[in-house]
Amino acid sequence: MRRPFFEEIEKIPFVGVESNEGLGYRYYDEGRVVAGRSMKDHLRMAVCYWHTFCWPGDDVFGDGAFERPWQAANGDPIALAEEKLSVAFEFFEKLGLPFFCFHDRDLAPEGQSSAESVRILDAFAEKAAAEMERTGVALLWGTANLFGHPRYAAGAATNPDPEVFAYAAGQVKHCLEVTKRLGGANYVMWGGREGYDTLLNTDLRREADQLGRFMNLVVEHKHRIGFDGTLLIEPKPHEPTKHQYDHDVATLHSFLQRYGLEGEIRANVEVNHATLAGNSFHHEIATAIASDFLGSVDANRGDPQNGWDTDQFPNDVAELALALYEILGAGGLGTGGFNFDAKLRRQSLDPIDLFHAHVGGVDTLAHALLVAADLRKGGDLERFVAERYSGWDETFGREILDGKHSLADLATRVATSGVDPHPRSGRQEMLENLVRSRVHSAR
Amino acid sequence: MRRPFFEEIEKIPFVGVESNEGLGYRYYDEGRVVAGRSMKDHLRMAVCYWHTFCWPGDDVFGDGAFERPWQAANGDPIALAEEKLSVAFEFFEKLGLPFFCFHDRDLAPEGQSSAESVRILDAFAEKAAAEMERTGVALLWGTANLFGHPRYAAGAATNPDPEVFAYAAGQVKHCLEVTKRLGGANYVMWGGREGYDTLLNTDLRREADQLGRFMNLVVEHKHRIGFDGTLLIEPKPHEPTKHQYDHDVATLHSFLQRYGLEGEIRANVEVNHATLAGNSFHHEIATAIASDFLGSVDANRGDPQNGWDTDQFPNDVAELALALYEILGAGGLGTGGFNFDAKLRRQSLDPIDLFHAHVGGVDTLAHALLVAADLRKGGDLERFVAERYSGWDETFGREILDGKHSLADLATRVATSGVDPHPRSGRQEMLENLVRSRVHSAR
Amino acid sequence: MRRPFFEEIEKIPFVGVESNEGLGYRYYDEGRVVAGRSMKDHLRMAVCYWHTFCWPGDDVFGDGAFERPWQAANGDPIALAEEKLSVAFEFFEKLGLPFFCFHDRDLAPEGQSSAESVRILDAFAEKAAAEMERTGVALLWGTANLFGHPRYAAGAATNPDPEVFAYAAGQVKHCLEVTKRLGGANYVMWGGREGYDTLLNTDLRREADQLGRFMNLVVEHKHRIGFDGTLLIEPKPHEPTKHQYDHDVATLHSFLQRYGLEGEIRANVEVNHATLAGNSFHHEIATAIASDFLGSVDANRGDPQNGWDTDQFPNDVAELALALYEILGAGGLGTGGFNFDAKLRRQSLDPIDLFHAHVGGVDTLAHALLVAADLRKGGDLERFVAERYSGWDETFGREILDGKHSLADLATRVATSGVDPHPRSGRQEMLENLVRSRVHSAR
Amino acid sequence: MRRPFFEEIEKIPFVGVESNEGLGYRYYDEGRVVAGRSMKDHLRMAVCYWHTFCWPGDDVFGDGAFERPWQAANGDPIALAEEKLSVAFEFFEKLGLPFFCFHDRDLAPEGQSSAESVRILDAFAEKAAAEMERTGVALLWGTANLFGHPRYAAGAATNPDPEVFAYAAGQVKHCLEVTKRLGGANYVMWGGREGYDTLLNTDLRREADQLGRFMNLVVEHKHRIGFDGTLLIEPKPHEPTKHQYDHDVATLHSFLQRYGLEGEIRANVEVNHATLAGNSFHHEIATAIASDFLGSVDANRGDPQNGWDTDQFPNDVAELALALYEILGAGGLGTGGFNFDAKLRRQSLDPIDLFHAHVGGVDTLAHALLVAADLRKGGDLERFVAERYSGWDETFGREILDGKHSLADLATRVATSGVDPHPRSGRQEMLENLVRSRVHSAR
Repeated sequence: MRRPFFEEIEKIPFVGVESNEGLGYRYYDEGRVVAGRSMKDHLRMAVCYWHTFCWPGDDVFGDGAFERPWQAANGDPIALAEEKLSVAFEFFEKLGLPFFCFHDRDLAPEGQSSAESVRILDAFAEKAAAEMERTGVALLWGTANLFGHPRYAAGAATNPDPEVFAYAAGQVKHCLEVTKRLGGANYVMWGGREGYDTLLNTDLRREADQLGRFMNLVVEHKHRIGFDGTLLIEPKPHEPTKHQYDHDVATLHSFLQRYGLEGEIRANVEVNHATLAGNSFHHEIATAIASDFLGSVDANRGDPQNGWDTDQFPNDVAELALALYEILGAGGLGTGGFNFDAKLRRQSLDPIDLFHAHVGGVDTLAHALLVAADLRKGGDLERFVAERYSGWDETFGREILDGKHSLADLATRVATSGVDPHPRSGRQEMLENLVRSRVHSAR
Repeated sequence: MRRPFFEEIEKIPFVGVESNEGLGYRYYDEGRVVAGRSMKDHLRMAVCYWHTFCWPGDDVFGDGAFERPWQAANGDPIALAEEKLSVAFEFFEKLGLPFFCFHDRDLAPEGQSSAESVRILDAFAEKAAAEMERTGVALLWGTANLFGHPRYAAGAATNPDPEVFAYAAGQVKHCLEVTKRLGGANYVMWGGREGYDTLLNTDLRREADQLGRFMNLVVEHKHRIGFDGTLLIEPKPHEPTKHQYDHDVATLHSFLQRYGLEGEIRANVEVNHATLAGNSFHHEIATAIASDFLGSVDANRGDPQNGWDTDQFPNDVAELALALYEILGAGGLGTGGFNFDAKLRRQSLDPIDLFHAHVGGVDTLAHALLVAADLRKGGDLERFVAERYSGWDETFGREILDGKHSLADLATRVATSGVDPHPRSGRQEMLENLVRSRVHSAR
Repeated sequence: MRRPFFEEIEKIPFVGVESNEGLGYRYYDEGRVVAGRSMKDHLRMAVCYWHTFCWPGDDVFGDGAFERPWQAANGDPIALAEEKLSVAFEFFEKLGLPFFCFHDRDLAPEGQSSAESVRILDAFAEKAAAEMERTGVALLWGTANLFGHPRYAAGAATNPDPEVFAYAAGQVKHCLEVTKRLGGANYVMWGGREGYDTLLNTDLRREADQLGRFMNLVVEHKHRIGFDGTLLIEPKPHEPTKHQYDHDVATLHSFLQRYGLEGEIRANVEVNHATLAGNSFHHEIATAIASDFLGSVDANRGDPQNGWDTDQFPNDVAELALALYEILGAGGLGTGGFNFDAKLRRQSLDPIDLFHAHVGGVDTLAHALLVAADLRKGGDLERFVAERYSGWDETFGREILDGKHSLADLATRVATSGVDPHPRSGRQEMLENLVRSRVHSAR
Repeated sequence: MRRPFFEEIEKIPFVGVESNEGLGYRYYDEGRVVAGRSMKDHLRMAVCYWHTFCWPGDDVFGDGAFERPWQAANGDPIALAEEKLSVAFEFFEKLGLPFFCFHDRDLAPEGQSSAESVRILDAFAEKAAAEMERTGVALLWGTANLFGHPRYAAGAATNPDPEVFAYAAGQVKHCLEVTKRLGGANYVMWGGREGYDTLLNTDLRREADQLGRFMNLVVEHKHRIGFDGTLLIEPKPHEPTKHQYDHDVATLHSFLQRYGLEGEIRANVEVNHATLAGNSFHHEIATAIASDFLGSVDANRGDPQNGWDTDQFPNDVAELALALYEILGAGGLGTGGFNFDAKLRRQSLDPIDLFHAHVGGVDTLAHALLVAADLRKGGDLERFVAERYSGWDETFGREILDGKHSLADLATRVATSGVDPHPRSGRQEMLENLVRSRVHSAR
């Protein structure tokens, strides 16, 4: 039998908030019921195969700093990928989270041809299924890597070459089927190359139509094969491209409406992508919910001083609590969950750093859930907001929204009644104090 | 007869590109025909009443630095506004541009009641009509100021108080009618307070519905009164609010689709608003055109190091040439035009600085038009782009877009044909050189 | 006797962290001893006269929304300023903080001449002294407003006109003396106009020399009059100017070294100015401490999505705890303190919002102090850092720093010893978890 | 004899501004005398070995897209580096620029030990010397790569481990000597890892002292070996580290003063690093000149919407013209020059794109030089600035700067003379128009 990679680590226990000793969850007690559901079921947390097992600790100015045996420079790709799979499931088990996520190329190396790639991925899917069966870890979502290979340099669905569109179609078709086979709860699309580096060589109108067609093809195939998970698109404003078409939640919503995809595709919102787009994470979550298409979350955080995707592990309870407050108000994430789309810092090169990072992220989310549940339970925010807009629930407000007054009617009313409405305090500071207070009192 | 304010300035002449002497247009020769139309008709330039005559040269840390007689601290508001009107039309005439733009409160001071405000504005509209008649200067657009008065602190259409909605409705109804009366080519809405300062006290869903209702009321009224100009909304991401709902062109498009307003409202794109939203101006123009709803342009520029709306006069020929290249490709701006939504720097406190600033902006646009026309005439960019996407005009590409291939078909094709598409150079640097070369050769 | 303005508010009590009722301090218990000193003496908190009593709730797009009697449009300036003074001291007393801060023009209106301005300020200083005597509230710092009046549009010390330099000199001289008279603990200079709007009309070298001269004059005068407080400069990168010379802490340090001002002037670091400059607040504090010239703090916060100085009240315990951790390590702020350089949101228009805002800010700081003290007491961070650099305390490290090895010696050593140093984990995630854990456990 | 790699490209000719045909310089005519010196001698342009020959066209989300024979995955490193060297000098010759620049690891692969690395680099330096002899291409600067290898993950000079400091010392010592041997005009240091990822594990004070010591060692060695080139440091705010110590020009100046390095080390200013730090390039150049320590320039440009180092080829004549205007005013760059620290876009994958990119960059600089020379010759800006500050050249201004007036004297003067200086227009728009006009008229 294989010797464990993380030999000195046991399964991470729940130790409680008072404990100061070693690795253990202070807040995440998976069976603890909060707001009518277990923490585990609320958060549906997943480990990200790519960041945690495939990324070698390199950056744009430096080589891989991690010495992971399965990343050896000259090993056999198949054997290395098998070792990676074993280590990954050992990690999932020891961490005790219910889900993982993968790109096709994370799980299985690309072959010499598309046909060979299909065969290799099928084989690895079988191995993964066995590990899932053994450990009880499930698949939150699968996705196809349509950005790493040079063939996708000018986009996948939005490529000027229809053969690339076809190639991408083949890859997504297969990955969607593998995701179904593994019982995946969702299937994600991230369009890192669906955008442009310069408008000078780009036909925006064509590319939008290509992307609309591609997404409709994926929707049709999903229904054809009976995949009952959710299709998700993950917005990001830029990086690697200068400008990416699924810039933020609002831009994605515009696209979905335009190509008849509302109701079929939901948003997978990432914290760091939100902030790169100049939005708060809270904003992106609330916007997706207000348009009824929030799907899932990539939990991480960016660096406020760095203009690229730093993908750090979550550590800000307040930021996540506000998002979870919205999510609780919307009845939860459905098939979605919280995927740790986060990577170690390059200097955190020891295997144990993977545990510190994930345990911290898990506890941050669990703590944020307690805060959000307290805020919901207290009801102060909801009451304040309801009261603030109460005029719209009264006759005059309802009539306006129901279209019973024309612009001219309203003008006449103002002119004749001498209405001169006075502003009322929005009490922002009081509400911020309330939230801060809950962040620090929730246990 | 009134003594001219700009006593020492004559009408700005066209002096040509070789001239080095004094105030005069080097590029803007209004009757010169470029790409089948006069410069005047292509650009439809407008002076902005607010920035040029109402802003006193203050900023968040300093008092008004301009000593304009019509801004005297203790004068009679009506008399001062009359003086302002005279000076404004003197300026329009001397500058020789065909249009101006105004907010209701720029033209006429607010009264003690809404009814009085209506009467005052009507009186000033009559005076303005006389000046327009006298000078031949026309109205590009009118707009209502729904952001300056404290009653709008929490928004106009999106206010939690329906009485404020009604008040705003009355104001827009009247301003739209005044705009029609003055023969305005468009009517603009800018939602500087339609957004939030904190999500903690905000109901996004309600506010979106309120805004959708409001816009539909304006559309209905426009048709009722037979205003045949275009309705425009001007996107801006933030400032003064933390987050504004018409964040950028794509966000606005999402809103228009959602509330059935496509085909009724077009985008008024501002350079500095584009860059504040993290987009290039070229991107915003191209995006609006790709979705067929570009309406008009607020020509100015921001400061790349300052994160607020600096509203500087245009000075970058290349930036505007790319926008005009797209606009020429789309057949022009229709009823829209280029409004100088730009203000002097606070230290440019002399009246003559108003001329330096506008003349520079006008010439920048005229020069940019020449560049754009050259690029269109040369056809290099169009040919390059057409060739790059030519695969999509061939059978296979057309079939994909026409929905003749399912995802599974495409996958089979890739697997059986062994297709392995190779990337092709996007030639970005070559194309950038081409544009730079045209910027410097156009005369 | 004057009727209180905040009639329904009593002195804010300490109510403790478990209380949920009304206005009261949950964390700030002024006499509580933490890390060997009372909370009051650690934090030395001050109310800011300008933001809290002079700002009318306007912004660049809207008029003042606050209806404060002492801001009435047509009142007598002296009487209004007297009323403001009374209200201010009522507020200070009810809030229970030990300090306040002022600009000369906040306290006393500007006169028709510099001589009259001096007389008015002297009179108000006397009134303020009486209120200070009555209430026990002391002065953290005074400062002269060298940015509001148009004469300073092109700078004060850096103005192209030496007469403006002289005018500013007169104003600072007097304000410094008033500050001394009132027992001020510090005197602050903020160079909001000491910078440029465009390099095209600017002589950087001259302006640097002018500023260097000005600061040396202030230092000389301070010693001449025997003011024993600390001179401070507050860095800010821009706003209102495009570029300000005291951009951030490092830039200020460069200036102080160049003009022989080290040891005479210290840094007054503001949170929102730090982030506008692209630095974290933690960075600015740590940088000032590492160069031994931290002086005082302007406590507020910015909005991560807005590129201007939003000056919101502090609400992020973690951000301030890291700063206080550094400050505790450096032995405290000396004569400095924490000034709430923060303003209400424009929609927070009720007088009670001033209390919500300040109470929240005070508690955030008090809580942050508890966290910082816990971190210091636990010693984990210090031990980790000391261990990480321990090689530099051993012989070889010490010899390098003592200059005992040349570049060639070191090269020979590496070549002959075959040294091949291996990276070690920086444990960033573990340390971040530790800090987060303290933030949530400190009481 | 080796077959040329760029077989179809001849030496790039000067074709003149009217030519529209193929690859050729429109503005760069190396022998043309401008402002008393040839274009070649003003600009001293260099090709960057790393970006142009070593970078494989990868990015954080994608593999290398360029198919360069000398980057073959499994080739012999020595043979591949030899091929690269040949291709590089073929390129230098065909481009016709006088200089190149290199990192030690660009020229020669790293060996198994430091001793082996030294031997390999020595051998390649000999080969390079032969090529330089053959082609007449000279070395603008050399530099050591202290950021790519994992040993430098936590910094080189600022590493917590003194052994890494020693290792870096050995590498710099050797690279400096190789640079001298090859007649390099400068030696550059770029501290990409001299910074921190988190302050939690960082001792700022120690790291500053380590860096100060390191730089002094380099200075001492330079003098010991008689290298008469200039030592340069290249500021950058962040990337790859969260925060880099040589953040911008002002920060670097603070460091040089603190560690007694003024007069020994000058600034190598990069356009894209300037903008990442929130400064304009013009600002950074002018600031370095105002403090007399500008050394050299890395010519490239960033993307205004992307927050990372995009290192695009220069294409903005105005931006570079303003920098060259300052440089001409300062008498030129001395031993420095303009290095194209710029890379192709990943989609520009053909060898010919290297020519398009460089030719465009060269012409942009040459054109900018013409504009700058015109601006100097016209003298309008200089005259305007001199006149604006003329008060400082008169008695009163000179006396102030000479320290003849105390603060009290100045105050008395203002009070008694009733001085009330009036602001004067800064004429920003007029000056901007002037510059724009020169940009478009210079030939």
